[in-house]
Amino acid sequence: VNTDRSLFVFGHLATPEHLAAEARKAATGIFHGAQIEPRDPAPGEAVEVLVDAGVQAAIDSLCVRYSTNGFAPGLDSSEVAARRLGARWDDLAWSYLDRWGATLPPQPEGTTVRYSVEGKSSLSGRRIFANGASGGEVPEIYSYAVDCYTTPAWVDEAIMYQIVVDRFFDPDTDFSRTPATRDEEYGGTLVGVTERLPYLEDLGINALWLTPIFESETYHGYDTVDYESVARRFGGDQALSTLVREAHVHGIRILLDFAANHCSWHNPRFVDARRNPSSPYRSWFTFADWPDRYDTFFEVASLPRLNTHRTEVARYLYDVAARYLSEFQVDGFRLDYALGPPLSFWSGFRTRTKAAKSDSYTVGEATASPRGLRDFEGRLDGCLDFPLVQALRQFFIDRSLDATAFDHFLERHNGFFDPSFSRPTFLDNHDMNRFLWDAEGDTRKLKLAATCQFSLRQPPIVYYGTEVGLSQNVGVEDGGLDASRLPMLWDGRQDLDLLGFYRTLIEARRKHPALRANDRKTLIARGGVYVFTCHDDRDHVIVALNNSDAVQDVSLRDVQGIDLLSGIKVSEHIRLQAFQSALVSIPNYS
Amino acid sequence: VNTDRSLFVFGHLATPEHLAAEARKAATGIFHGAQIEPRDPAPGEAVEVLVDAGVQAAIDSLCVRYSTNGFAPGLDSSEVAARRLGARWDDLAWSYLDRWGATLPPQPEGTTVRYSVEGKSSLSGRRIFANGASGGEVPEIYSYAVDCYTTPAWVDEAIMYQIVVDRFFDPDTDFSRTPATRDEEYGGTLVGVTERLPYLEDLGINALWLTPIFESETYHGYDTVDYESVARRFGGDQALSTLVREAHVHGIRILLDFAANHCSWHNPRFVDARRNPSSPYRSWFTFADWPDRYDTFFEVASLPRLNTHRTEVARYLYDVAARYLSEFQVDGFRLDYALGPPLSFWSGFRTRTKAAKSDSYTVGEATASPRGLRDFEGRLDGCLDFPLVQALRQFFIDRSLDATAFDHFLERHNGFFDPSFSRPTFLDNHDMNRFLWDAEGDTRKLKLAATCQFSLRQPPIVYYGTEVGLSQNVGVEDGGLDASRLPMLWDGRQDLDLLGFYRTLIEARRKHPALRANDRKTLIARGGVYVFTCHDDRDHVIVALNNSDAVQDVSLRDVQGIDLLSGIKVSEHIRLQAFQSALVSIPNYS
Repeated sequence: VNTDRSLFVFGHLATPEHLAAEARKAATGIFHGAQIEPRDPAPGEAVEVLVDAGVQAAIDSLCVRYSTNGFAPGLDSSEVAARRLGARWDDLAWSYLDRWGATLPPQPEGTTVRYSVEGKSSLSGRRIFANGASGGEVPEIYSYAVDCYTTPAWVDEAIMYQIVVDRFFDPDTDFSRTPATRDEEYGGTLVGVTERLPYLEDLGINALWLTPIFESETYHGYDTVDYESVARRFGGDQALSTLVREAHVHGIRILLDFAANHCSWHNPRFVDARRNPSSPYRSWFTFADWPDRYDTFFEVASLPRLNTHRTEVARYLYDVAARYLSEFQVDGFRLDYALGPPLSFWSGFRTRTKAAKSDSYTVGEATASPRGLRDFEGRLDGCLDFPLVQALRQFFIDRSLDATAFDHFLERHNGFFDPSFSRPTFLDNHDMNRFLWDAEGDTRKLKLAATCQFSLRQPPIVYYGTEVGLSQNVGVEDGGLDASRLPMLWDGRQDLDLLGFYRTLIEARRKHPALRANDRKTLIARGGVYVFTCHDDRDHVIVALNNSDAVQDVSLRDVQGIDLLSGIKVSEHIRLQAFQSALVSIPNYS
Repeated sequence: VNTDRSLFVFGHLATPEHLAAEARKAATGIFHGAQIEPRDPAPGEAVEVLVDAGVQAAIDSLCVRYSTNGFAPGLDSSEVAARRLGARWDDLAWSYLDRWGATLPPQPEGTTVRYSVEGKSSLSGRRIFANGASGGEVPEIYSYAVDCYTTPAWVDEAIMYQIVVDRFFDPDTDFSRTPATRDEEYGGTLVGVTERLPYLEDLGINALWLTPIFESETYHGYDTVDYESVARRFGGDQALSTLVREAHVHGIRILLDFAANHCSWHNPRFVDARRNPSSPYRSWFTFADWPDRYDTFFEVASLPRLNTHRTEVARYLYDVAARYLSEFQVDGFRLDYALGPPLSFWSGFRTRTKAAKSDSYTVGEATASPRGLRDFEGRLDGCLDFPLVQALRQFFIDRSLDATAFDHFLERHNGFFDPSFSRPTFLDNHDMNRFLWDAEGDTRKLKLAATCQFSLRQPPIVYYGTEVGLSQNVGVEDGGLDASRLPMLWDGRQDLDLLGFYRTLIEARRKHPALRANDRKTLIARGGVYVFTCHDDRDHVIVALNNSDAVQDVSLRDVQGIDLLSGIKVSEHIRLQAFQSALVSIPNYS
């Protein structure tokens, strides 16, 4: 069961075959990845650069070359010799791995340290540079920024809402029409989003994540043809300006979806790189055999990979992103496939975007294990919490985790990350089955899971339509990912009971800072019953979840309060129906 | 390539699917295995018992209950609370794992500490005992012996020879006959082995490992029908007595192959356990559903698993083993499928067999990673070195490791184990393709690999027939494991050049303690050329290997010596033909 859910949420990335293939690749060479300690270096802190070396690399010395002057380190840069910290056997790699560590000196605030890692074997005379998964003959330039950026304060209070723009609304389009095909351009626009701002404000939303709006050739927009223009079919630049301005009036921030890893093969730069042998854009892509073989996103020929290792490519993308922040006043970015570009790209991205707008937010989409997510600490403000969505579904849909195990997971998971690293929560998104579909339409389970999601410290994201019972006609396993992106329901098909519930839940979270606080204490976690308290200085809420199909009587000694969801008074005891939840607010708390 | 060889030598045990399945199973509960520090506790040393607990176990306390009075720990035994040492994310398990540690007090020599491990969740009220891979409702009794046993000194100088008894020799059988089927009883006997002792002595062998000789129903004998009788077809008890007596006269020790994990379904105890509802032997086996569903060796119905967790079963097997040592004067045991019985079984086995014969030797067959082998430290004198045979074949057959990487592996591998833990080396055995078969009959490569094998500190094993060029007619991947167990060559088909080489090589190892010494220093390890020195107080040999198809001129500055393999004088330089090796002895070394 565990394995199945891993497959679902993480795709092939969590399969043992894939994990072993990656580990065995790494063991043939030297592997750095992003292993630095501390992960987010502060001014004045020395930084340990850690490297693993496999048997086939067979190195007996290792050094780190670094620069702080803005240029890549060269032969005249400072060098630090690494110490061999020991050897271990690794089952996944099926190899002994040596661990090496080199200590780079502290730096003042604002420094970007660029470095490369070189191993040597005195026996073979071979030199090998850390480079991608297994090392090679060309050094990769790694970097970290010594800064004091923090996640903007507004994110703590954010209630986010994800919109697939083509599928949300347009005033001139009939949204009651059944889509002809799952991947047709249905007709949603930014004008439509603007028109529905009152709906969103009424729901209680204060941040929107829009799937890509740049010029592209598919309804979903992840194939950018022109980063510098808002798609005409969405209303163009003007529509974005209007939306941002109006949204801000309604107290709603706007996050754009930015796909930096790859673009469309009809992007003029790629067209030129393929057509013109002396194209200045040839180096923007990686041609294994020009012009027809090139790096792509997962072997999709129409999605060539941008070479984000290169300075000019990074600078271009940074400029584009900065312009949307400064000219259009958007509030940040959801960064598509953040595992693709190197971490040094993201360090630079954050530096540049914070300079353009100091309270902008950068959150990565990295479908990775907790270890993989943690690599982004110090590079981005945060990452979408994929391990959590897996655990939420294991508890509320599969029930392969019981309340005790789910609570145990939450404790470890929260303890694993730096508290300042933002991990927005979600029950589903456009790349997986909707929660309601997998819960077989049982809105009780959706409400229950949402109550839990809205009682965790990290900001919640609602996938458009969830609040009105939008589901699917077919599972993504049969219908492809488009199956979970049906048009928004605007007519009588809306589940108004569910909508009312979501309004109440969002209002509860906005009014009760305890629900967003770090101070959580488990009272009951047994079988399907999960009860915990949330505290902050002024506020106290008891969250009670009945993840079972039986009525549960929960004793709450000395508690006098009111259930924010039902409005009913609670006195020392609460009765929860099957799959029912309660948020018991305790007044006069001090 | 790495993966393919893993599959070959380790079967499914090294596949990512199997490793992940085991790890994910462990993560659903609590897992102790054999994790104690130190691994081989000496008198007066405190012992740290280490336990991993997965998210689904969700325990928040853990204790170890132990006894030293010879009985299993009970509720009135001493208890030590464990400390939570931290949480980590484990990719293979795809779970957070908590690590717990409990410190048991030091004990005097001769104590056997028996203990059980119990985790509790205060939230669910659930108790879970460490038990097998994932824990359960019944405590497993673990144990360690506080003793000062050492591997007998004779093992250091042993040159071992593995004989599949049915396939080696009998004076009344025609050994030139082509076998009718690969699994027929061909006719080899212990009388035959005795008759060939002069051949073996002449070869230079001083220890024999005989595949199982107890009463059984297959030619190979791994299905024991009666542990207490030597098979009549091999000559019965009398033939064993004679063999041991004669072998000792020739300076050759005898190791028996002991399969404790499982027996034949025609073993009378199993027959009784299945037939008789009140059989005293029912508890000797594990019936999922009596009488037809029972634990077996890898789902083979004819090989029921003995319940070696039970005291009476262990006592019986210990008695049997001790009797062969004391009555028959055999010198030790090769322990079949040592991964099957619990480690506590092996602790007891060693204690009992050392008591029966203090210089007896116990070596386990554990087809496991280095980590898995290391679990046997403190339990057995040693284990057959499967990771090494994989690396030897990667270097000398596949060439997926070059000399630099092979040397790197050897250094890590030797550093990974306690030096006192014995790890006999081999190029092949009865459960895999013969080296010569995989080397496509190229005896140059066999000689080269054998030179390397015989220059390592650990005792070498020669698989019968290797020294005269015995190979196969078909690979084990097509013909099954029987394919590598053809009858010994006794006639004109013997490769006398190879035989002469093996005699010379064995003589060199016996005369030159440097080749068995720990003090190895690498001079050259590059591409196919691998040169290292071996030292001891009085002796100095340079080992030079050319694992390439080109002539190699190797410069040996200041060296004046003689190549023990060719008899040629060496002065500052040696020329090695393709796949040739040399053992350059340096006289007057001080």
